[in-house]
Amino acid sequence: MAYQDMISTPFAVIKKQAEILDENDTLQTYKRLFALPENCVYLDGNSLGALPICAKQRAIDVVEQQWGRDLITSWNKHQWIDLPTKVGEKIARLIGAAKGQTICCDSISVNLFKLVCAALAMQPGRNVVLSQTDNFPTDLYMVQGIEQLLGQQCCTLKTVPADELVSGLNEDVAVLLLTQVNYRTGYIHDMEKITKLAHEKGIIVIWDLAHSAGVLDLKLDQCAVDFAVGCTYKYLNGGPGAPGFMYVAKRHQPVLKQPLSGWMGHSNPFEFTAEFVAKNNVEQCLTGTPTIISMSILDAALDVFDEVSMLEVAKKSQKLTDFFMTGMSTLKLDSIFECISPQKSAHRGSQVALNHPYSYAICQALIAQNVIADFRAPDTLRLGFAPLYVSYADVATALLKLAEIVQTKAYLRAEFNQQSKVT
Amino acid sequence: MAYQDMISTPFAVIKKQAEILDENDTLQTYKRLFALPENCVYLDGNSLGALPICAKQRAIDVVEQQWGRDLITSWNKHQWIDLPTKVGEKIARLIGAAKGQTICCDSISVNLFKLVCAALAMQPGRNVVLSQTDNFPTDLYMVQGIEQLLGQQCCTLKTVPADELVSGLNEDVAVLLLTQVNYRTGYIHDMEKITKLAHEKGIIVIWDLAHSAGVLDLKLDQCAVDFAVGCTYKYLNGGPGAPGFMYVAKRHQPVLKQPLSGWMGHSNPFEFTAEFVAKNNVEQCLTGTPTIISMSILDAALDVFDEVSMLEVAKKSQKLTDFFMTGMSTLKLDSIFECISPQKSAHRGSQVALNHPYSYAICQALIAQNVIADFRAPDTLRLGFAPLYVSYADVATALLKLAEIVQTKAYLRAEFNQQSKVT
Repeated sequence: MAYQDMISTPFAVIKKQAEILDENDTLQTYKRLFALPENCVYLDGNSLGALPICAKQRAIDVVEQQWGRDLITSWNKHQWIDLPTKVGEKIARLIGAAKGQTICCDSISVNLFKLVCAALAMQPGRNVVLSQTDNFPTDLYMVQGIEQLLGQQCCTLKTVPADELVSGLNEDVAVLLLTQVNYRTGYIHDMEKITKLAHEKGIIVIWDLAHSAGVLDLKLDQCAVDFAVGCTYKYLNGGPGAPGFMYVAKRHQPVLKQPLSGWMGHSNPFEFTAEFVAKNNVEQCLTGTPTIISMSILDAALDVFDEVSMLEVAKKSQKLTDFFMTGMSTLKLDSIFECISPQKSAHRGSQVALNHPYSYAICQALIAQNVIADFRAPDTLRLGFAPLYVSYADVATALLKLAEIVQTKAYLRAEFNQQSKVT
Repeated sequence: MAYQDMISTPFAVIKKQAEILDENDTLQTYKRLFALPENCVYLDGNSLGALPICAKQRAIDVVEQQWGRDLITSWNKHQWIDLPTKVGEKIARLIGAAKGQTICCDSISVNLFKLVCAALAMQPGRNVVLSQTDNFPTDLYMVQGIEQLLGQQCCTLKTVPADELVSGLNEDVAVLLLTQVNYRTGYIHDMEKITKLAHEKGIIVIWDLAHSAGVLDLKLDQCAVDFAVGCTYKYLNGGPGAPGFMYVAKRHQPVLKQPLSGWMGHSNPFEFTAEFVAKNNVEQCLTGTPTIISMSILDAALDVFDEVSMLEVAKKSQKLTDFFMTGMSTLKLDSIFECISPQKSAHRGSQVALNHPYSYAICQALIAQNVIADFRAPDTLRLGFAPLYVSYADVATALLKLAEIVQTKAYLRAEFNQQSKVT
């Protein structure tokens, strides 16, 4: 019996389910706001979000009109100077932060450096930065840089497995640094619970929201979060290398001292005085001249979220990944891949991670079939489900292609096995 | 006698001279590579360079084609991952640096932070960072941030007036941090001489090239410079907030340790290992994900310089400012403004700074006449002369408008006296 025939019945069921789910999807109209290529199933919005049409228009405007024609006068005329705060406030609504706590600037790594240094300075007598062994590596690298700069007596990075985090919270710990959604498995930490437990021990918590912002229904203020950083090129669709953001809880702003004290954080940046005097609000965390073009594009991209309920987004995210995992089971793919993402949807970010010895080649074979996923060394196939532009029909297509590739062993073809520079 | 008649003869002479100078200008064809508005005399390329036409096309391409259609695959397909090095090498040729020493990343302020920390770590037993009292303030602010972070026993900022710099070079000094071209006056430090004097005392020198790169005939290798930083949105025309660059002399790369150790500086960034291991070259200074859109636009903008001789650029820069200053004298403007820029063209960057109690209003009146200059508090009118797109005819026009505004006291009109947020 041909493979196509073998899966035709279960696949027909999946396809029908997808149709019904799409019809009832309250977010279905958002897909048309994105400039996705035709017939492309894009399951990598957790790495680089798709292009919002309004961002495309803004890119042309900021380059041709603002830079090209209005030139230097655009700092006033088009309020370039206000962008870090304006964009920050747009993000604030999406992460559950009241006004005056969120700004957009630099990269997530640079922003993390600022906040780890600031947090350590607020914790005299404590030097441990506690994190998770499989935290996103660059977060650990940044702390290692601080450790080397300040010496271990001022900063010692300690990493433990996820299940030892709570027992690791003690009075030596100055800072708990966690990525809320694991970049590989998609496991979601309970922000409210962990923040509370850490606070009971006098620990400051920094949350990395790289895979959370734009897809989870975040409540930073409600969770009494101290500090957070995030990036905007994933689920916030800001474009490749779009600038990062930072959140500093209002209560910490009067005592905050961050070391990257550039002119944009000065209380009076155009006075050109020789002495740095920090702004008395979150803008003290700004450093150099903002990347106006990238930040303008992000500013426009965020308008897609204008009327969006993050609760609806988070719900659809769970439904999409549930639908995918159920489909895996229906098509008997669950015995071929080891799914390392949590089975419970409440514990799972908007991604599914599948281990397989040939996951690199399978990823390439999927891309050749116009289903874009990504690979994380050594053997993880990672699929991201961006609720604003991934439909249930897309998920059904991805399932079919994956089943075909696996069953026909198409991934053994040489063309799919050349690992390239960026994996 | 009407003012127009009074200046008509000397201005006719200036106009004629401009015509002859433009005819003989070997760089005159470059102006057409820029998308400048018609009839605009743009004398602010020292703050925000004009838009190169090829950069405009690239902006559309990187957004619509690369991000929009090729999505995540562009990291390989369009070599996004190589941009920091590729762009760095384009800049290298313009600053007199052999290959493997220049990268593009972050902002000038953030890059300065990396290099001051790295330089201090290379100078055990020394803690003074010597700089100039009227250095560009953000450079001083960044050192103040390091001072606060590391403590004064590790970093003490000492600033002296320009004429005390040489006598200030002693064995306590770890790092000499200078901006080569003063942002206000345009005074150029003798890079070769000062670097040599500092090296004789064992001092590491960091040059800020913000107003040098793209306009002076720089010879970083020949001057045995240790480290340098620069920005690309001024004479390099990279667009508003375009990323900065860093130069690290080859000889220092094996021992360099910079604290902002993000994934892009890792020797094997896609292995996702928990321990940071720095690249053994200048790329170790990279930190987070590059701002791909802004950096791509800069990459294209630098193509304007492809066939350009920096010696020719520097020569034209001197001739433009000479022509302006001679014209000031011819039109008797030199008694009305106090010129704070050096009289000798060899000591003068590509700008002329004029003090006047009403300089803010004069600047606004000039802008209203389509001559774009800028104002620096408290009373400086600053005019920048970008040799690739400023013609001698432009300078003649600027002189006429300035003379008219001053003689008719147009600057006293209320509309020119409202200081806006960005000055």
